[in-house]
Amino acid sequence: MKQLIDNLHINCDMGEGFGPYHLIDDALLMPHISAANIACGFHAGDPTIMKNTINTALKHGVEIGAHPGYPDKEGFGRRNMDMEPGRLHDMILYQVGAIKSMTEALGGQLIHVKAHGALYNHAAKDEGAAEAIASAIYAISPNLILYAPVNSLQAEIAKRIGLHVKMEAFLDRRYNQNLSLVSRKKERAVIFDSQEALQQIMGISNENQITTIDGQKLPMQADTFCIHGDNPQALAILTAIKAAQI
Amino acid sequence: MKQLIDNLHINCDMGEGFGPYHLIDDALLMPHISAANIACGFHAGDPTIMKNTINTALKHGVEIGAHPGYPDKEGFGRRNMDMEPGRLHDMILYQVGAIKSMTEALGGQLIHVKAHGALYNHAAKDEGAAEAIASAIYAISPNLILYAPVNSLQAEIAKRIGLHVKMEAFLDRRYNQNLSLVSRKKERAVIFDSQEALQQIMGISNENQITTIDGQKLPMQADTFCIHGDNPQALAILTAIKAAQI
Amino acid sequence: MKQLIDNLHINCDMGEGFGPYHLIDDALLMPHISAANIACGFHAGDPTIMKNTINTALKHGVEIGAHPGYPDKEGFGRRNMDMEPGRLHDMILYQVGAIKSMTEALGGQLIHVKAHGALYNHAAKDEGAAEAIASAIYAISPNLILYAPVNSLQAEIAKRIGLHVKMEAFLDRRYNQNLSLVSRKKERAVIFDSQEALQQIMGISNENQITTIDGQKLPMQADTFCIHGDNPQALAILTAIKAAQI
Amino acid sequence: MKQLIDNLHINCDMGEGFGPYHLIDDALLMPHISAANIACGFHAGDPTIMKNTINTALKHGVEIGAHPGYPDKEGFGRRNMDMEPGRLHDMILYQVGAIKSMTEALGGQLIHVKAHGALYNHAAKDEGAAEAIASAIYAISPNLILYAPVNSLQAEIAKRIGLHVKMEAFLDRRYNQNLSLVSRKKERAVIFDSQEALQQIMGISNENQITTIDGQKLPMQADTFCIHGDNPQALAILTAIKAAQI
Repeated sequence: MKQLIDNLHINCDMGEGFGPYHLIDDALLMPHISAANIACGFHAGDPTIMKNTINTALKHGVEIGAHPGYPDKEGFGRRNMDMEPGRLHDMILYQVGAIKSMTEALGGQLIHVKAHGALYNHAAKDEGAAEAIASAIYAISPNLILYAPVNSLQAEIAKRIGLHVKMEAFLDRRYNQNLSLVSRKKERAVIFDSQEALQQIMGISNENQITTIDGQKLPMQADTFCIHGDNPQALAILTAIKAAQI
Repeated sequence: MKQLIDNLHINCDMGEGFGPYHLIDDALLMPHISAANIACGFHAGDPTIMKNTINTALKHGVEIGAHPGYPDKEGFGRRNMDMEPGRLHDMILYQVGAIKSMTEALGGQLIHVKAHGALYNHAAKDEGAAEAIASAIYAISPNLILYAPVNSLQAEIAKRIGLHVKMEAFLDRRYNQNLSLVSRKKERAVIFDSQEALQQIMGISNENQITTIDGQKLPMQADTFCIHGDNPQALAILTAIKAAQI
Repeated sequence: MKQLIDNLHINCDMGEGFGPYHLIDDALLMPHISAANIACGFHAGDPTIMKNTINTALKHGVEIGAHPGYPDKEGFGRRNMDMEPGRLHDMILYQVGAIKSMTEALGGQLIHVKAHGALYNHAAKDEGAAEAIASAIYAISPNLILYAPVNSLQAEIAKRIGLHVKMEAFLDRRYNQNLSLVSRKKERAVIFDSQEALQQIMGISNENQITTIDGQKLPMQADTFCIHGDNPQALAILTAIKAAQI
Repeated sequence: MKQLIDNLHINCDMGEGFGPYHLIDDALLMPHISAANIACGFHAGDPTIMKNTINTALKHGVEIGAHPGYPDKEGFGRRNMDMEPGRLHDMILYQVGAIKSMTEALGGQLIHVKAHGALYNHAAKDEGAAEAIASAIYAISPNLILYAPVNSLQAEIAKRIGLHVKMEAFLDRRYNQNLSLVSRKKERAVIFDSQEALQQIMGISNENQITTIDGQKLPMQADTFCIHGDNPQALAILTAIKAAQI
């Protein structure tokens, strides 16, 4: 296996607890990632969890990003909601605005934004939502970077508006032939094996190609790689990647 | 009756609807006030109402302020909640941060902060809460002005921390002998009559004294006067004040 | 104009305030309707509003029904949410169960159930949702009556499960050629004129036919007629109907 | 050590997750308890978690009870809220009503009610709250049993109203001299050691006396013993108790 290029950019969703609840121990993964997408209190998170997660990211020199989602904690932002683009825009202003101010109050700087769950998937292919999100981020600050799926309408519209965009691929999810993610409802949708995850990231970063779930090789270029914090093998995968980079 | 001094500073709570609900028509009062305290989505308000209220304030040249409250829409932030100071602090960071970023995204500037309802009353006399609120506002921006009740612990602590403070008196509420507000549960707590409101504001602004509900005259100095938007006579009172200023 | 048949069954959504907020004065319409669909705390309503509305209905001898909706007060249950049928089922158990027990505690009896807003429209044509709702109601009590749109999949599935169904037509909304409601986004969707509403209800109840927005006459039979409480002409329309019945 | 009496009545709070979140694995403890106090969606729980928890209790023949709390998921119902007794009453009607209907729809029967967290503590000593809770439970059904702290005002008022009351002691919490619980903020408030828990329960059930945190022996009689599901030693303690009962 060839060596993995240095300094891969790896992002992870963080701060997705609420009140007394926690899904994962953020502090465990924080030393191994480049960027944290921090929940903003709508699909998950609350002000205290946000502050603590920002502080943990600052401590580890991890880039801080907003991770806004639908206002639906019970569904964890994974159920589509039929919001008008105007209200969607305002909701992004609010969530991104809140975490930007908090990050600055804590001595840091908000670097990027990544939509969560059903909102991320919807905006990847819906013009109204993509435009609502991108224009809200731009209004908060034209310097913010949007993470968007490779080849998505969201990426295209955000660039047209003038936003910086990082194309995102997933370390631990398999892809269909049209480069959409294999649905979580299907077998083999999630990659749990460190070596398979390593192979996927090496394929994309070294050879600019992805192997789909059907075994086809397709071109893919990515600027950042997402790993899911609730993947039980997340730490093992991140450790394998770090080892391959040395 | 002597003439009222010009340019009295009058503030009003605004944007206190939620989703399909509205308590008052903000646009009606906006032309008659100096500063709007805008609900931040916890005791009332939602992102779209916030945006619309900020825009209405900008249109009328009204100062924009944050109006954070307890996370309790059902109780409209009027029920005390036993929050730890640490969580209270974080909640203020979040709410004030959200509206500050939104205001700037819309081309304006956040000028002040005024706590809402039970939080306002609690922080007036509780050291932990007063300190939690003031330090959070200071962390968001040392240039923000805090509205606090005349003679309150909140005012004192905020000044010690280095915040600018505007001492607030109420146009349309009567005062007890200890300068606390007469409870809404008592008769005559609220002033509905324009002439009585005018007399109260003239007493404070021209003569630096308030007449308590018991008829006693006590010294009081105020930098800003609050009128309640849900006072059915609000517009009549504001019109009477304007007339007296000419 | 021929005389309207006596004892038309008219239902109205009620108790759709929340905390300090109220959309309409329920007590005004209550004397003029046969059945109240009472919000259950998810899209609107809270325990105190529910209790007060149940009591008002009891006082006026109005049939009490549950009006469950999506868990989305900000969107007033009018935005579709992509809920799994299993969770939808449980949510209906909860909402209908709550108001059934409350009604019995107050000395009344829960008679019917009508889904609200986006949930009503979705279940009218989605098999999974229709089945989830009907089976939950049946589990709470096989004696409950479901209000469902004329000719809907919801009505058909509910009957198959063994529920009693009342076919519902709208007094104050116009119909398309396929007997769906004209979208609120279109002109003339809502009927504000008393005489037009009267004509619509007489057509359906006396002649079993509806005149669509395009002027076509189609067969329609209805067991209950809905009027919207937030129609500003609701009282005028109800008064006109009452006059025509004498 | 003398043998523990058979058939001790042990209750445990259950179903306290929310959406994607879970605090403990209820199924692990369910075989070892007599009664489950199931969260009703206000301080924790949602309709699906409630249904699943009811079904697990039914499967294990565990008595099903309502565990209503303040409407405050972020604070997990552990922060006092200044609710008017009237609203408190209605909130209990709603929560207990919902789970009663759900339990019956699933083929079971609601046996008891135990208030949660800050509400439990507040009602133990506040007449208005105690009366609001007891009268609401009685209105839902006079057959329901209320769990209340030994010697509490809540117990006394509930009995006066006509409710059945089970006096509750805690297996895993230490007591002050006035028989209140030692605050969780103090050391040794919680009992983690199986043998100490066993000693406490044997003292109360066999000898009708409790040893306070100061070592004083005081009379105490209890009808049911609570163990906290989030006590990391809960299973060990329950196993030790079972062993001592054989």
